[in-house]
Amino acid sequence: MNVIIIGGGGFIGQKAAQSLANQGMLRGKPIDSLTLADIAEPNSVNAPFPVKTTTCDITDRAAVDALISADTDVIFHFAAVVSSHAEAEFEVGMQVNLYGTLNILERCRVLGTCPVFVFTSSLAVFGGEVPDPITDHTIPNPQTSYGMQKAVGELLLNDYSRKGYVDGRGFRLPTISVRPGKPNRAASSFMSSIIREPLNGEPAICPVDDSQEHFYLSPRRCVENLIKGAELRADDLGQQRCMTLPGQRLSIRQMIDALTAVAGPEPAKLITWEEQPDIANIVRGWRYDYRFDKALALGLQADKSFEENVRYYIEDDLQHA
Amino acid sequence: MNVIIIGGGGFIGQKAAQSLANQGMLRGKPIDSLTLADIAEPNSVNAPFPVKTTTCDITDRAAVDALISADTDVIFHFAAVVSSHAEAEFEVGMQVNLYGTLNILERCRVLGTCPVFVFTSSLAVFGGEVPDPITDHTIPNPQTSYGMQKAVGELLLNDYSRKGYVDGRGFRLPTISVRPGKPNRAASSFMSSIIREPLNGEPAICPVDDSQEHFYLSPRRCVENLIKGAELRADDLGQQRCMTLPGQRLSIRQMIDALTAVAGPEPAKLITWEEQPDIANIVRGWRYDYRFDKALALGLQADKSFEENVRYYIEDDLQHA
Repeated sequence: MNVIIIGGGGFIGQKAAQSLANQGMLRGKPIDSLTLADIAEPNSVNAPFPVKTTTCDITDRAAVDALISADTDVIFHFAAVVSSHAEAEFEVGMQVNLYGTLNILERCRVLGTCPVFVFTSSLAVFGGEVPDPITDHTIPNPQTSYGMQKAVGELLLNDYSRKGYVDGRGFRLPTISVRPGKPNRAASSFMSSIIREPLNGEPAICPVDDSQEHFYLSPRRCVENLIKGAELRADDLGQQRCMTLPGQRLSIRQMIDALTAVAGPEPAKLITWEEQPDIANIVRGWRYDYRFDKALALGLQADKSFEENVRYYIEDDLQHA
Repeated sequence: MNVIIIGGGGFIGQKAAQSLANQGMLRGKPIDSLTLADIAEPNSVNAPFPVKTTTCDITDRAAVDALISADTDVIFHFAAVVSSHAEAEFEVGMQVNLYGTLNILERCRVLGTCPVFVFTSSLAVFGGEVPDPITDHTIPNPQTSYGMQKAVGELLLNDYSRKGYVDGRGFRLPTISVRPGKPNRAASSFMSSIIREPLNGEPAICPVDDSQEHFYLSPRRCVENLIKGAELRADDLGQQRCMTLPGQRLSIRQMIDALTAVAGPEPAKLITWEEQPDIANIVRGWRYDYRFDKALALGLQADKSFEENVRYYIEDDLQHA
């Protein structure tokens, strides 16, 4: 198995690389090589097989052609310009998220080797006029250019798979919490910060009411699902190869209660409430009532309670920090 | 009003041009000019305003730039490589249906003039795993590359509209019957032939059982809806600017009964049944249980009975042949 992770420098890419290194196998066969590609040179991981790191700008078709060869068996495509960036710079979002994905798929089509292609889509494909709950049969009606570009990626993945050009599988990621690292400018940033910062003994601000609900998945379970997703049998995927990953619908209050259940009463005391209308308005516009029947039927899993999300952060990230 | 019809040489383009010529106005203002563009030089129409005909290959961005200018107010985009062609020649379908549509939208974005953009999508966006009935909230799960390319067009139209680059509206066309002209190689060709040929005193073969249901709209009503679609207020379109046009769900038997009701018993005697398994299998895979609530709420209309479809063919096409 020759595996490539495009977007291998991001936190999901790095965790997926570490998981592959730990298990040494994919789709029932030993991994022969792993290539981590990203716009900037990714960190490597320790593995029982050769790991190569490389830069690749997926907007450059020649760079994509050089990255993917006839002996590539599995491609994880995690590279994207994020929501706020794609919204602020329309052309950049189109180049990376739409044409970049097309460059990868076109390279595979020309090779004719039908590699497994694992694509991370987003719940940002949903929104607009559709009624709740949002199921695997709900029309994407994205309200951001990022969401549109991911929805186009899903359609391309399905058709390139139907034609036999790739063996695609696409997974819409819930909001990932508890994310490691630093806060960023995403409106969802506080959904990790309010847990992560207190566990690090630092204060955190919650900008919304604690009754606000949302839809979550831990990084550990996310990566598990993406690797399981690569291992699914093509025959089991049917005619719709893109699906919402399982997640938990939780209020902020339930998340903080889980923090306290795992780490005692002290961390939660570091959280203060400071209504930030800009963020609260964005978050109130998000949907949280999702069904994920297809992914469940295929054996993909949500975290069992948010206590797991807290514990995974402590085990996987806090102890390594 | 300066109007362009891309795909102006096709039968819908020609009928739309004639309707615009007859009404002389669009969106409450006189039409100053009409340009009919197609891959081959279209026929012109008699009109009370200047009509220009021109060739334009929409896969050529420079040709699209030359066609659409800052004083273009309304663009009807009907040009496409049809289903069977896009399936047989994947690259051609991508070039015309996907990149061609992008060339038009990108030209509009660069101009910054936000023209009205009317796009013909297709029920071919639907299929696969979704349950009946298929509503305006059902996910496109196309099972042809043509359907995928149209579904991508819908997503692009919505996002380019949200961003203010175009004022888009997209309409998924039912199967158009009674189509004028000659039979073609489309699997749906007989759905017009079995009415049209007998009205012309010629024999016709029906390759499926007369209980087979499908979803239909007449050419006259289709063009009426597309022009009304151009005239809708942007505010009334909401967050989802693409919708299924109203149609009638009918069996072959109901269509033939309507033929007899309008034209007497003789034409139907020219129809013979000859099961063609290839065509019957394709048609049985098609969906016919559609809802079109959004289009109805916006004032778009189906034919009232198939007798109308027969009568419109006689009035609009047979008498001119």
